[in-house]
Amino acid sequence: MSKGNCIVGQSGGPTAAINATLLGVIRGAMASPHIGTVYGMRFGIQGLLEEKLVNLGERVAPERYGALRATPAAYLGSCRYKLPADDDAPAAKIIDILRKYDIRYFFYIGGNDSMDTIAKLSRYAKANGVDINFVGVPKTIDNDLVGTDHTPGYGSAAKYIAATVREVACDARVYDRDTVSIIEIMGRNAGWLTAASALARTGEGGSPDLIYLPECPFSMEQFLEDVRTVNRRKRNVVVAVSEGIRYADGRYVCEGRANGTTDIFGHKYLSGAARELEDIVREQLGFKARGMELNIPQRCAAHLASTTDLDESEAIGAAAVEHALGGATGVMMAFQRVTNPYRCSCVPLDIEGIANAERTIPREWINAAGNDVTQAFIDYAYPLIQGEEQIVFAGGVPVHLSIDA
Amino acid sequence: MSKGNCIVGQSGGPTAAINATLLGVIRGAMASPHIGTVYGMRFGIQGLLEEKLVNLGERVAPERYGALRATPAAYLGSCRYKLPADDDAPAAKIIDILRKYDIRYFFYIGGNDSMDTIAKLSRYAKANGVDINFVGVPKTIDNDLVGTDHTPGYGSAAKYIAATVREVACDARVYDRDTVSIIEIMGRNAGWLTAASALARTGEGGSPDLIYLPECPFSMEQFLEDVRTVNRRKRNVVVAVSEGIRYADGRYVCEGRANGTTDIFGHKYLSGAARELEDIVREQLGFKARGMELNIPQRCAAHLASTTDLDESEAIGAAAVEHALGGATGVMMAFQRVTNPYRCSCVPLDIEGIANAERTIPREWINAAGNDVTQAFIDYAYPLIQGEEQIVFAGGVPVHLSIDA
Repeated sequence: MSKGNCIVGQSGGPTAAINATLLGVIRGAMASPHIGTVYGMRFGIQGLLEEKLVNLGERVAPERYGALRATPAAYLGSCRYKLPADDDAPAAKIIDILRKYDIRYFFYIGGNDSMDTIAKLSRYAKANGVDINFVGVPKTIDNDLVGTDHTPGYGSAAKYIAATVREVACDARVYDRDTVSIIEIMGRNAGWLTAASALARTGEGGSPDLIYLPECPFSMEQFLEDVRTVNRRKRNVVVAVSEGIRYADGRYVCEGRANGTTDIFGHKYLSGAARELEDIVREQLGFKARGMELNIPQRCAAHLASTTDLDESEAIGAAAVEHALGGATGVMMAFQRVTNPYRCSCVPLDIEGIANAERTIPREWINAAGNDVTQAFIDYAYPLIQGEEQIVFAGGVPVHLSIDA
Repeated sequence: MSKGNCIVGQSGGPTAAINATLLGVIRGAMASPHIGTVYGMRFGIQGLLEEKLVNLGERVAPERYGALRATPAAYLGSCRYKLPADDDAPAAKIIDILRKYDIRYFFYIGGNDSMDTIAKLSRYAKANGVDINFVGVPKTIDNDLVGTDHTPGYGSAAKYIAATVREVACDARVYDRDTVSIIEIMGRNAGWLTAASALARTGEGGSPDLIYLPECPFSMEQFLEDVRTVNRRKRNVVVAVSEGIRYADGRYVCEGRANGTTDIFGHKYLSGAARELEDIVREQLGFKARGMELNIPQRCAAHLASTTDLDESEAIGAAAVEHALGGATGVMMAFQRVTNPYRCSCVPLDIEGIANAERTIPREWINAAGNDVTQAFIDYAYPLIQGEEQIVFAGGVPVHLSIDA
């Protein structure tokens, strides 16, 4: 085991749990006699390329660990920078900078695009005989990474969605008239977040009453028929839909409303499926209808974080350090589940084949009609949202840790 | 003091605190030797007209009081029914039904339109020698009722907004690039909810950086200049705007996007101010911009309720019972504030002149530039969001009380 410094970065979209993973890395690294300085890169590898490094041992004293764990988004800042496929120069420059700071262990917390970074850097290092270990730690509310039982961050987003849909369902049933509430939830291609709305139900006949996911082709005719059927049983229908639901021919339901802008990876911003359905319900069924998006709080509502998620997110960060010290490189840490009782262990997986792949909900976890999830999904997702954090408030609002403060 | 039964109803839009007020009425009435049965009307006076009554003493046992307090929206159901100005028949019918159930005390928890109901019913009762006391208890997240220091429900909505804007601000600052996040908050004519976003700041230079309210005419040119100015100091600009911001000529900023539908009181649904500003920021300034609406959770996020708000909401319900027993009728209960330390007492106010009036933010609580609130507003709103509820969770989601269960 060679001694040296380590560096950790955060990348991709924010979650409520990514700082818990950062805390796990810091704790693991600070506790190791084989690691000297624990560096953090500001704004992921984009900041690293500009040598924007911070000393995390100095920056985050142990008495601030609790606040770090409770802070959403990315304490170190994030980026959407992807290493080019056909140009080794940025990788070479990164290796030079890592060598300059005597860095032996590199941890990158992120989603699909970040795992691609780990794959490229570890490949480059191996090809050039560079003795630096590159370990990826997953993070995404979308839960769409392959190889891991679930992703850190998903449980907290799922808990926020379940709790919020439950509150919105209370709001939806106050009037004695036919209403349809349509809640749009994040998820372009994978319905994991929308499916989590099913956890809002705690009794027979609870809301949401219908759930539509991108995994099944959407039929407007069938949707209206489904709403009519539920309405015969209860006047206030609550529907959860993924932003990415699309028709059998591939057109997005929101397409008439999409503003057409794309992010820098070329992902199209989707939004408006709920508003589209709202209009059609009003026109076709004559019911009072309202569409709403749960929006950004889905990925940053740390005050409703799942303790299971934060504990696991912290553990997988610490496990990444342990495995890197043990020689692992070119790997992504993953969760392996044991059931009865639920428990997860953290294992390293070869990164090749993980990056740039996408995991959607198995068809058998969705009911035959394509308008709800099955008990198998509930059994899968239920443990992930358990446990409430004891959030520290000051002045009536949650206390967060800011790197700029 | 004449002995008899009482009835309580809820009306208008949901809040996170309206059931705390219901609980205050139930507790006060159950404790009084002068009140027999405590009835609840399902769906406000609309349900009362159909004799949809429930016995609250039987329905809500004391061991369920905690769950009732923690349940958002309206436990009894609500309505948007307004008594006609030119036809006494519905008022006469209501009085007949109240007499049939030997009801002496009538409590109506609601907003502006509900206070109008109290005004009409008490006027009718006085004119016709009917010995029933009508007491209104305010409730609205909008905080726009005159005569009361603030309204029950506002503090919880304000706390939700402050906490959520704080989390969104964490999310907004993760990238090392020029971004503008525009958060749209409820409020057609009064900016109380949007102004509460200022409570998200806990340090110098905290977000939101700019706040625009319906009380000040909106200038697109000045807005773009304001964003440019903030951007010179920090790359990630966070803006809070009321849905009802409008130009000097009275046009709503969202107007190009409003879908034009109106609710049954003729209120136009507003939405889209943030998206409009997002587009203009992107076009005119070239910054990455995103607009979002906080949406329905503003009025039903009971898991983030303010303990101060729920305590006061419960107290004003109990005070309504006390004053009704003391002979008050044709009144709305109101908060009177004492400062240093903050404390509110509950007093009855003559209802005439309160219904159908609207209270906006005093101009001196908004800064000269019209893009922020002053310390006077902070001093006013700060006490209202203090205190966190100990919410009971089961299965990872909050426990609520349902009248249908």
